[in-house]
Amino acid sequence: MTKKYNVGVLGATGAVGQQILTCLGERIFPIDSLKVLASERSVGKTVDFYGDLLKVEKVGPDSFNGLDLAIFSAGSEASSEYAPIAAKAGCIVIDNSSKWRMDSRVPLIIPEINPGAMKKHKGIIANPNCSTIQMLVALKPIYDAVGIKRIVVSTYQSVSGSGYKGVKELANQSTSLLTGQEAKISVYPHRIAFNCLPHIDSFLDNGYTKEEMKMVNETIKIFDDKNIKVTATCVRIPLFYGHSEAVWIETGRHISPEAARELLNRAPGIVVIDDPEINRYPMASDCINLDEVMVGRIRADLSCENGLAMWVVADNIRKGAATNAVQIAELLIKDSKLMKTDWSD
Amino acid sequence: MTKKYNVGVLGATGAVGQQILTCLGERIFPIDSLKVLASERSVGKTVDFYGDLLKVEKVGPDSFNGLDLAIFSAGSEASSEYAPIAAKAGCIVIDNSSKWRMDSRVPLIIPEINPGAMKKHKGIIANPNCSTIQMLVALKPIYDAVGIKRIVVSTYQSVSGSGYKGVKELANQSTSLLTGQEAKISVYPHRIAFNCLPHIDSFLDNGYTKEEMKMVNETIKIFDDKNIKVTATCVRIPLFYGHSEAVWIETGRHISPEAARELLNRAPGIVVIDDPEINRYPMASDCINLDEVMVGRIRADLSCENGLAMWVVADNIRKGAATNAVQIAELLIKDSKLMKTDWSD
Repeated sequence: MTKKYNVGVLGATGAVGQQILTCLGERIFPIDSLKVLASERSVGKTVDFYGDLLKVEKVGPDSFNGLDLAIFSAGSEASSEYAPIAAKAGCIVIDNSSKWRMDSRVPLIIPEINPGAMKKHKGIIANPNCSTIQMLVALKPIYDAVGIKRIVVSTYQSVSGSGYKGVKELANQSTSLLTGQEAKISVYPHRIAFNCLPHIDSFLDNGYTKEEMKMVNETIKIFDDKNIKVTATCVRIPLFYGHSEAVWIETGRHISPEAARELLNRAPGIVVIDDPEINRYPMASDCINLDEVMVGRIRADLSCENGLAMWVVADNIRKGAATNAVQIAELLIKDSKLMKTDWSD
Repeated sequence: MTKKYNVGVLGATGAVGQQILTCLGERIFPIDSLKVLASERSVGKTVDFYGDLLKVEKVGPDSFNGLDLAIFSAGSEASSEYAPIAAKAGCIVIDNSSKWRMDSRVPLIIPEINPGAMKKHKGIIANPNCSTIQMLVALKPIYDAVGIKRIVVSTYQSVSGSGYKGVKELANQSTSLLTGQEAKISVYPHRIAFNCLPHIDSFLDNGYTKEEMKMVNETIKIFDDKNIKVTATCVRIPLFYGHSEAVWIETGRHISPEAARELLNRAPGIVVIDDPEINRYPMASDCINLDEVMVGRIRADLSCENGLAMWVVADNIRKGAATNAVQIAELLIKDSKLMKTDWSD
């Protein structure tokens, strides 16, 4: 009989939390008990898990006793407070926030890329940033084949990256503007409907946003390559689901677009959609609920000798968050040696 | 007394044509007579020129007799047919289509950049692509100061780049989707509302679109620099007016973001908006009817030693088309030696 696990989900009422529940069910994760946790605000709500209505419990220091693993998606503050408590209680945490990603004790995992890094975990494992995940899944086969020296990326990120509140803001503002009313601004610093904001997360002293620096720093950590150079411009655009990325890479050795397409076609977690002559290329509207990363518009970089340009699209809530987290959970339970915690602050 | 000119506008009922009329009036262009021309479809319509209702005339081979200059914005086919006829009739053509841009007999002009190239005109002068104009206005001061070896650009282009029909398509599709109806597709190959299409103009054999190759080739022609390397990804996003661009440049010599900001601040046609700490950066929602190109998010390219990243926004219908064309007309009439045509096929 398959071993079953006591699983917790923190932030179960959010956009990602809901999708984590969906993924756990879809992928038939072996669950013995499922505990859904959230902040005080959501207590009293119920969430649906394939017909079972689960009552949301308020998270607290004792919430993790008896759990084998928990997936966190309740923001950095909650992760900061509860991940060490959970790990010390013997519950392995897969954390979707940015809080622990760059901590040297915490592996930052994309299952298609660096599953081996799981071995070093001490009870907390981090899920990378959504934009980083889809970019690196797309680049990994090329990285392995010919090396990558430099990445230039600009993103086209949907409002669901800010959770349900982003989705509501875009819907409300769009409706207001199309009906001649004023667009009320509450989630983003400026109007997002029929607009485009070069601003995701807060600004740092070097002129980059935190979101952009996540793409830079997480790439280095996940590829475990201090020499790889990355620059990013992260942009919020007015669509609900799906992140798109214009990516340029400078490779270590030359690779043709055809050879790259061939490599990507064989790689796990990737769907190549690249028939521009019949208007087929990855689009956000086609990625909803897809676990794979879509790659297309693969072509030579005309500005650089060993370079490629491409267009990468994924469901930011699925592969960019929930699916990747559940895949990490699957890796964990596949190897009983990984099912331990020894966190110390 | 100021000399006045007999002016024609071909495509006067379109999104750009309407804005050309607005710009001619706003900038007090010395007009003796104004003839508004269009294809058969628009004949019978009237257009408003500051209170004067002008009757749209059907364009034909004799339309340009007696005109001093005409601004064309009726697409490549009309430009192909009528620009040589007009030029041979002594009417200088400022053409907004892509038809003549790469023709060696035709100067491709951005007044802030290469007004001197006007001298060689033979009766047809081309207005560059909207995305090229705003990018090069932003880059020119840096190009002059330290040289630019390479440009990587991804665009965030509004639907007005496809004219009024693009604007209607986005409005209709957005309304349909927000009211639970199906979005009808007619202008773009896929839905544009709440979506993002890496596809503007048609695809070429090298995997780039014509729009992307315009940015590559027009940059070389306007800077008159065969060594400058350019790669572009052009993307249509769901907003009505204003194009945004994420631009990376590799410069010939090092320049700090501060020095670049200083240079741009002093340059003509540019407004620097770069105070991220108070959420000030260029946005499409702020560019409407602005003739200047907005530049912000100027920072070091972390992936390249002598590199800068920036964010460039402009009104694609104004500086990207109408304003630039009228500025070319202003250059023409400033120098009587330019007011001649000697076109031969």
